[in-house]
Parts: sequence; C-alpha cells; structure tokens
Amino acid sequence: MVNSFFDHLNKYIKIDKHDFEKIISYFQVLDVSKKEVLMEAGSLCNYNFMVLNGCLHMYYINDKGTEKTIQFALENWWITDQLAYHHHRKTEFFIQAIEPGQVVKISREKEDQLLSDFPILEGYFRHIYQIAYGASIMRTKYLFDNSKEEMFLSFSEQFPEFVQRVPQYQLASYLGLTPEYVSEIRKKRRS
Amino acid sequence: MVNSFFDHLNKYIKIDKHDFEKIISYFQVLDVSKKEVLMEAGSLCNYNFMVLNGCLHMYYINDKGTEKTIQFALENWWITDQLAYHHHRKTEFFIQAIEPGQVVKISREKEDQLLSDFPILEGYFRHIYQIAYGASIMRTKYLFDNSKEEMFLSFSEQFPEFVQRVPQYQLASYLGLTPEYVSEIRKKRRS
Repeated sequence: MVNSFFDHLNKYIKIDKHDFEKIISYFQVLDVSKKEVLMEAGSLCNYNFMVLNGCLHMYYINDKGTEKTIQFALENWWITDQLAYHHHRKTEFFIQAIEPGQVVKISREKEDQLLSDFPILEGYFRHIYQIAYGASIMRTKYLFDNSKEEMFLSFSEQFPEFVQRVPQYQLASYLGLTPEYVSEIRKKRRS
Repeated sequence: MVNSFFDHLNKYIKIDKHDFEKIISYFQVLDVSKKEVLMEAGSLCNYNFMVLNGCLHMYYINDKGTEKTIQFALENWWITDQLAYHHHRKTEFFIQAIEPGQVVKISREKEDQLLSDFPILEGYFRHIYQIAYGASIMRTKYLFDNSKEEMFLSFSEQFPEFVQRVPQYQLASYLGLTPEYVSEIRKKRRS
C-alpha cells in the first residue's frame, strides 16, 4: 500500500526506490478503523497525516455541541491543523476516520529531520500546500457566491466520489448546509 | 525597499546578500498606484505577487455585478490565484492595489527557473503556503462559526491594521457582510 505513496511522490519530484525506503522510515503506517480518532481538540498538534486508502475528516465541535467538518482527505491528501502544526500549538480540531483504511503519519520533529535529510521533499510539499491553499480559496468563493442548492450540485459534479463515500450529515456540515437540506436536494434530483 | 524582501526570506531560510542579488533578478519590482489593476479576470494567471509595501486585494465580480474580496495582501504576503497559477490556467479573479506601494512579481516560467537554480527557496515557499493554507482553513471556521458581529470583532482584534487600512466595503465583502452592517457595528462600538 505504501507503493501508492511512492507513485504519488513521483508525480511531483524524482525519488528512486532506494531513497523511498529511507523516506518511509520517518513515517508510521497505521491501520485505522471506521470512526477511529487520530487527533483530538485540546491536544498538541504534532502530526501530519496522509491517506493511503480510506477517508479522514477534520472537524470541530461548536458552542452548540454540533460537529462541523472543515476538511476531508481521500487517497494521497494530507490533513492536519496546519497552523497549529506549523507553530507547535494546541489544536481546536479532531481528525477521525470515516472509512476503515491506511494512513501514514509523521511527527513535526521527524518532518523537520526528513526535510533536512531529503531537501528534495521541500518541493513536493510546496506543490501540495500551494494546491491545497488554492483549493481553499476557491472553496471560500463557493461559500460566498453560490446558493445552497448550486453549491451542493457544483460540489457533486466536481467531486462525485465524496458524495458517494461521505455520510450526508458530514457533507452537509462541510458545505455549511443542514443535513435536512441536503436530503431534500437529493430527493428533488432523484424525482 | 527590496531589503525588506531579503529580511523576510531570512526569517525562513539562510540567504546571503550575494545570492539575494541573483534571486531578485528573477523578479520585477513595480511601483503601483492606488486602484491599479495587476491581474484581470479572463486572463492567463501567469504571475505571483508579493507586497513590499502597500496593500493588494484579490476579488471577483459576482452574477449581480458586485465586487467580492476573497483575499488581502499586506507587506510580505504573496497573492495570486494559486490554483490557476499552478495549473497554467485562466483566472476568475482581479488583483488590485488598495494603496499606492511597491510590489514584486514573478512569472510562472521565471519561478520554475528560480526554484531550479535556487532549490533552497522551495523550503521558503513550502513555509509560506503551509501557513497560508492553515490560515485559510481557520478563516473558513470563522465564516462557519461566528455570528456576523463576532466575526467582525474577532477580525478587528486579530488584524487591527487591516481595519484601519482597508476600505469598509472591501472589508465587509471579505467577511461576507454588507457594508451597512459593518458601519452599524462600528457605530455601536464607538457609542
């Protein structure tokens, strides 16, 4: 399964099998079960996660006790509270598995060491964060600009895999909608 | 003024004056006047901008003809449509100066060349994008979670410089509020 990580890295930079064997030793490979919690609000954010297979989500619990999904991660997506991770701070977010799967995780200290030993990976992470940042800006545009129905339809068209794999209430939360609203739109589309 | 760029780079990586002279030659340094447009919707997004002094904003014009600010950039902040820039695509956004100032810009081709000639800069951009991505996630959390008034107050506390420097209607747009609403909150706070 870590072979998919090797292929993914080689989309952005050139790494041979020999170096990859060394690189992967900085990571832990975890089997995660459905609903397993990998990071908890209130704890130091010391890990960065990448999905080998399965699906994670990052969420917080608001003042009303409602779970709000802020980010999803499917295969080859990185997920953590990047600001807290960068600044060695506590996080306000949880990370939880939506599906059973496999994940790699790396601690902040190991990542610093990895980037110092393999500076070629700086380029890989630069690409990853640039794309993630760009996508996050576009998401804000969607949140500002579309009616609720448009947002759901446009999201469904762009990311059909999500709509199939992610529970309706989490998808609704991610899009800033109520689960009832998403259910209503889905019914309307089927009819 | 480019000295501030040298100091800024040295917060993240080690660059000496000699290398900096070479690095800066990949950029254009521009004097911008208030309201000057640096990028237009519909054009190829081929430039990445950093503010030396002054303030830029990135916005789009929605279906109703309203200008919506999606991003600001003060001193040492990078700004462009990162997804379009990364993928060599046309952009839906404008970039405009809010204040007169100085900006560096680099084309996508020059940036590729720069990163290949000075791979140490990959680490700098990795930091920059990681922080920007993290901040963007936190912004989404604010947009989801706060009442309009809380959002404005919390933003004012965290970024007092913005509230002083940025026109009220652009700040309102950035926070997803109406200018009338921001004006009302400001009056309430003064009374």
